[in-house]
Amino acid sequence: MRRVAIYAIGKREDRCTQHLLEELRTNAKRFVHIQWHQIYTKQIHQAQRTHEAQQAYTQALEPHLLQGWFNVALDPKGQEMDSFAFAKLLERHTKMAFFIGGAYGLEDAFLRRCDLVLSLSKLTMSHKVAKIVLVEQIFRGCSIINHHPYHK
Amino acid sequence: MRRVAIYAIGKREDRCTQHLLEELRTNAKRFVHIQWHQIYTKQIHQAQRTHEAQQAYTQALEPHLLQGWFNVALDPKGQEMDSFAFAKLLERHTKMAFFIGGAYGLEDAFLRRCDLVLSLSKLTMSHKVAKIVLVEQIFRGCSIINHHPYHK
Repeated sequence: MRRVAIYAIGKREDRCTQHLLEELRTNAKRFVHIQWHQIYTKQIHQAQRTHEAQQAYTQALEPHLLQGWFNVALDPKGQEMDSFAFAKLLERHTKMAFFIGGAYGLEDAFLRRCDLVLSLSKLTMSHKVAKIVLVEQIFRGCSIINHHPYHK
Repeated sequence: MRRVAIYAIGKREDRCTQHLLEELRTNAKRFVHIQWHQIYTKQIHQAQRTHEAQQAYTQALEPHLLQGWFNVALDPKGQEMDSFAFAKLLERHTKMAFFIGGAYGLEDAFLRRCDLVLSLSKLTMSHKVAKIVLVEQIFRGCSIINHHPYHK
């Protein structure tokens, strides 16, 4: 079974966001097993400056950069792609991890350790909205791979 | 007061999507009055082919192309911009209308009648997700114009 793990810096999402994500996960269940983890540490909470916050994100996220997984960081500086290119990416990698930074963004040192840096849009989005876009795109991508009519 | 109207082809959104949109609208209330309208006609329901569906969308949407408003169609073929360029666009126009087509997309004849064709992302999104991205972007844009810390 295809697996996707999403690691996002931040506290637990509100009930409605969780519901929307859950609905997309259920729709995608026949194609992919999606898990997400909100990560929020004491260091992240206490960080006051960009550099300090970014280091705290790296510390919290790097244990999840696993070998054998294709690791993708979401970042506005990343590569944009359309839904068909994203579907091809999903098709090529049966284990994918996505990393979403906090308000200060991910540090370059972390980005360099990922296999791909991806931008969802030129527009900046809140983490909540980015996660909804990403999970819907994973479902759309799986629908494209499996010739399911959702993406039409 | 700045005004934004969103016209989308489709049935009423589910309760959680409405809740997320409502929350964004409330946050943006001090800057902008946002209204949205879901439009779904008998012609749209009965349309079976692309051309027929697109004509039904045009028929349903064109009464809302008002003079004195800056009319923006959302379409994957449109122009992409970052959040700062989007904020400038909002700043220049105090009355803006956004048009979101149905599953078959908007017809070129309708796109030509709009002042701008905008693409939110290279990725294709469901109408629900596109609306969440758009409303969050309107709030973000107003925060940028008004030096409110949300966008940071």
